[in-house]
Amino acid sequence: MSYSNRNRKGLLLGFPEYSAPARGLAAAAGLDYAEIDVHHFPDGESRVLLPEPLPERLVICRSLNQPNEKLVELALAASTARELGAGEIILVAPYLCYMRQDKAFHPGEAVSQRIIGKLLASWFDGLITVDPHLHRVHHLQDAVPVAKAKLLNATEAMAVYLDSRLDNPVLIGPDEESEQWVTAIAQRNQFEFHVARKLRFGDSDVQVTLPDADYRGRHIVLVDDVASTGRTLEAASRNLIPYQPASISVMVTHALFVDDAQERLKDAGVDKIWSCDSIIHPTNRIALAESLAQALI
Amino acid sequence: MSYSNRNRKGLLLGFPEYSAPARGLAAAAGLDYAEIDVHHFPDGESRVLLPEPLPERLVICRSLNQPNEKLVELALAASTARELGAGEIILVAPYLCYMRQDKAFHPGEAVSQRIIGKLLASWFDGLITVDPHLHRVHHLQDAVPVAKAKLLNATEAMAVYLDSRLDNPVLIGPDEESEQWVTAIAQRNQFEFHVARKLRFGDSDVQVTLPDADYRGRHIVLVDDVASTGRTLEAASRNLIPYQPASISVMVTHALFVDDAQERLKDAGVDKIWSCDSIIHPTNRIALAESLAQALI
Repeated sequence: MSYSNRNRKGLLLGFPEYSAPARGLAAAAGLDYAEIDVHHFPDGESRVLLPEPLPERLVICRSLNQPNEKLVELALAASTARELGAGEIILVAPYLCYMRQDKAFHPGEAVSQRIIGKLLASWFDGLITVDPHLHRVHHLQDAVPVAKAKLLNATEAMAVYLDSRLDNPVLIGPDEESEQWVTAIAQRNQFEFHVARKLRFGDSDVQVTLPDADYRGRHIVLVDDVASTGRTLEAASRNLIPYQPASISVMVTHALFVDDAQERLKDAGVDKIWSCDSIIHPTNRIALAESLAQALI
Repeated sequence: MSYSNRNRKGLLLGFPEYSAPARGLAAAAGLDYAEIDVHHFPDGESRVLLPEPLPERLVICRSLNQPNEKLVELALAASTARELGAGEIILVAPYLCYMRQDKAFHPGEAVSQRIIGKLLASWFDGLITVDPHLHRVHHLQDAVPVAKAKLLNATEAMAVYLDSRLDNPVLIGPDEESEQWVTAIAQRNQFEFHVARKLRFGDSDVQVTLPDADYRGRHIVLVDDVASTGRTLEAASRNLIPYQPASISVMVTHALFVDDAQERLKDAGVDKIWSCDSIIHPTNRIALAESLAQALI
């Protein structure tokens, strides 16, 4: 194996559980691809094996949903890559973990965004991610203080996917935070769009107020950056049913879909769910490889 | 809450899954005890909440079997404790993880002992652990480069437990590495002891050769530092059966017992299993609180 001779741009290393999107990204970016071998011992420890030799510039691609074990394995991989001579290591994490806990909501609470961000910055020289769920911290480098940080929007890839799929759809952002994504997609495709208002009373108690519009007989697409419990999208969909739309679809960047979120969305009248491949999920329809490759070049 | 006023020695913080031994240690060391609250979100992220206020000197007690998630949570806890003003933080990890991978057995393999050791040393000022499974690295501080490191043997606690339990037992170490533990326990109690020879052909293919001795009608105790797959102890026990001993028992420090190890030991003729409480397990009989407290004072 001699990647460095074959390709001056360098090598992209993937992990087994995120192999297909990482291979797609390597192909789109003109990088060689190799896979890090991970073995999980029965006692819960991980063995990480890197391919050799490594070039000077290295890209490691791993998406950080269900992150704790992956973080420890990233530490093992990045530190080993340094020992094997890698100079610059860029992390491509299409889904970035621990971005929501950006302040202590109770005294004594770990501000995990800052702590995990510093760990990642100690292992990597650069970070590329897609639509991280930033609230109070507005710049990615304030959360993850790497030398180079790039934050991509999935909206271009989503807009392209949606362009020819539905006849004159109406896009709805289920809360104020989703306004940025829904606006970007709708404006590119010249679609009608609206933004709902959300009141949250608890983890699973959410009230969504739709703006008044003529949804009857229309194809509705609910757009959000992440579907976790899916409660917000569920509430929005239920409120749409009385308007008798032609269909209700959900389009999200990050398909976390914890617990029975997907079934609840179906029960709430959602016909189709489309997601980007930042998190591997049966609803994946939109590949982010081209967008990520642009950020790598 | 004002621990620092009540106790000049400081505070010991435990975690929910290792609460009882940590409370026992706090009591034995004359420290106040409080528990770190850990919540696991459905998306796999952890929320860590420390009690407040924290004193200048802090002990955090967590055993690191099944370590990956615990390591990330230790990073969150230690970093938060620093932010809350803790000056010195000592980690008491009765079972210490990632001690076996102390060299690259294949090119490109992560030397996890060194990498995880450096991470622990970046979070903690001191470390106390019990019988870590060190091979080629002989000093704990070479593996975990903290300012203060103490390595305890469980042999004193094991010897006390065994002293009045069996009538004139024979102790056997199933391989050369176990010689140090079996010798210490046997000599303190003036028990007969032997050390077997082991040949390993694979993870679960182990051949143990017993030294020739008169085991007939005797109570045999197989002594080792860790029981993981239990294959070595299983092989030793099977070889003892033809000698017709009165009983075969197993005494280990760290009760990992992965997969069906415990059932296989029973099938191989083992009557009783006794373990220390470095890893919570139904076989726990020997508390390490007193030994650990001596190291803390």
